[in-house]
Amino acid sequence: MRTRKILLGHGSGGRMTQELVNSVFKKTWANPYLDQMLDGAILEVGSQRIAMTTDSFVITPLFFPGGDIGKLSVYGTVNDLVACGARPLYVSAGLIIEEGFGVEELEKIAASMSKAALEAGVQLVTGDTKVVEKGKADGIFINTTGIGIIRTEVDYRPDRIKPGDAVIVTGKVGEHGLAVLAQREGLSFSTPVTSDCQPLHRVGELLARYGQEVRCMRDPTRGGVATVLNELAQQSGTGFIVREEDIPLDPVVQGACEMLGLDALYLANEGKMVVVVAKDAAQAIVEDLRQLPESRDSAVIGYVKDEVPGLVLLETELGAHRILNMLESDQLPRIC
Amino acid sequence: MRTRKILLGHGSGGRMTQELVNSVFKKTWANPYLDQMLDGAILEVGSQRIAMTTDSFVITPLFFPGGDIGKLSVYGTVNDLVACGARPLYVSAGLIIEEGFGVEELEKIAASMSKAALEAGVQLVTGDTKVVEKGKADGIFINTTGIGIIRTEVDYRPDRIKPGDAVIVTGKVGEHGLAVLAQREGLSFSTPVTSDCQPLHRVGELLARYGQEVRCMRDPTRGGVATVLNELAQQSGTGFIVREEDIPLDPVVQGACEMLGLDALYLANEGKMVVVVAKDAAQAIVEDLRQLPESRDSAVIGYVKDEVPGLVLLETELGAHRILNMLESDQLPRIC
Repeated sequence: MRTRKILLGHGSGGRMTQELVNSVFKKTWANPYLDQMLDGAILEVGSQRIAMTTDSFVITPLFFPGGDIGKLSVYGTVNDLVACGARPLYVSAGLIIEEGFGVEELEKIAASMSKAALEAGVQLVTGDTKVVEKGKADGIFINTTGIGIIRTEVDYRPDRIKPGDAVIVTGKVGEHGLAVLAQREGLSFSTPVTSDCQPLHRVGELLARYGQEVRCMRDPTRGGVATVLNELAQQSGTGFIVREEDIPLDPVVQGACEMLGLDALYLANEGKMVVVVAKDAAQAIVEDLRQLPESRDSAVIGYVKDEVPGLVLLETELGAHRILNMLESDQLPRIC
Repeated sequence: MRTRKILLGHGSGGRMTQELVNSVFKKTWANPYLDQMLDGAILEVGSQRIAMTTDSFVITPLFFPGGDIGKLSVYGTVNDLVACGARPLYVSAGLIIEEGFGVEELEKIAASMSKAALEAGVQLVTGDTKVVEKGKADGIFINTTGIGIIRTEVDYRPDRIKPGDAVIVTGKVGEHGLAVLAQREGLSFSTPVTSDCQPLHRVGELLARYGQEVRCMRDPTRGGVATVLNELAQQSGTGFIVREEDIPLDPVVQGACEMLGLDALYLANEGKMVVVVAKDAAQAIVEDLRQLPESRDSAVIGYVKDEVPGLVLLETELGAHRILNMLESDQLPRIC
């Protein structure tokens, strides 16, 4: 690494995060679980195959249109378990609170976590509370770690992606990122943009019914859809073509992105899944997904192309192609 | 709660932490797992009984005599799993890093975690890295969450504690707390005090051989031995008598406590277990424990007495009794 100091970009979820994780952790911690390259680890516990995933939430502001750090911290971990092919079951919560934080806010966050857990069908089973001096944290940080049982009928791995496979996104992109940005910068749009923060356990259940026809899926949070596809391209050794006109996008988000010079494909989502499926099953899967309110705007946005290994290409409406790189550093820090 | 702001004492692990957890979380999150009153949750995952436990580490300084935040974060979670009666298996790591933190320090911490995991027989299977702006955290905070398989032969619950049972501590008390305090305040003693930071998975294995004769055990970290015994007294509805002269104590720790006005029974330990066992098995268990280097100073320090339900009494060398309360707020913030 060129720099010897941690920069905000190292937390972006993009290229810099990947480099840091590879150079500092993958090397020293080397084990087959870390090498699975999933949103979590798939573990053998006795006779059971379970998924385990962890995430710390440092979002600012703590309350934003469509959600708050409590809800986000539960759904974020639930969705990572879903992406591993698991039925989410149990979630732990580790809270780091800054001295002087309001007890009422804490109560609101605790209640929001509880409601989110109920909604997503998981239980908050164990917790830990630490307090640090004023000025040594920023309100509250929440770690959630989740475990779930891997569904026997599924096997989600990037190396199962095949040329010709279709890429589905389960709804409109960029809403969480834009909602948080707008709240933070005091921007307002003609129609308010709210975070898409929602649990995807039912999406996971639905997709499991398609068994091996679903190759792999991933939760496009930090770094957005473009970054997740780049990860999958690297890990599968295949490439992706994404058709710009097929990407589900709210007109308000589109307008705001044009105005602010943002690319919705790099904005964080907190209630969407990018799913790679067998070509022949794609249409049926999308139609099924559209029956669920949380994935009603599902669409096939592209396909896997062997001729561009490791690359993600955006096909514009005029038929031109440009490379969609992984998010470089940070479009927006502390988005989750 | 009288105060409506979070105070440092709410993170002490003592009475204020208990009040906060009860008033904010237990009420809203109510479920049978949280009510188990253990250092973690015991869960059914398919046909398997597993333990899950979480802890965030916010210790300052990050490197201290006898350890560092990396090692501590792995052993802390391993020891909580042991206290649940589990064989520790897998650990996740969620890192929150302050912008500007040195990459070299991060590498040292990552290597220390890796070494600790190897030592304790667990694997670091999944992780998450977040970065917050300079001044919004304090170097690095680490959450670890662990899972392990519950040993079939054990059943550790406070409500299995019976009058007459013996209380064992697996070694000298107060070393971690004093080492961190000394490092922080620039104190030096005739013989340096180092943290007792060590994994107790072999202690767990040994105790499992005694099956149901071991009633319950707990890891006396924040709030020390006195606080843990108070928790057990409340949860079991019994009382404890602790004999002052039987408490294993390093003379340097004893001298420093006298000088500084500290009570070693409230100082944090990071490699000790408080174990309640059947009276008749106590001597054999202690002798066995003394065969392991990590528990060579094990001793019976007291017994369970029904006549003082909910109380912990210290019997002084002169035969007088005084009440050992739970730690009120904070003797020393950010000790783990």
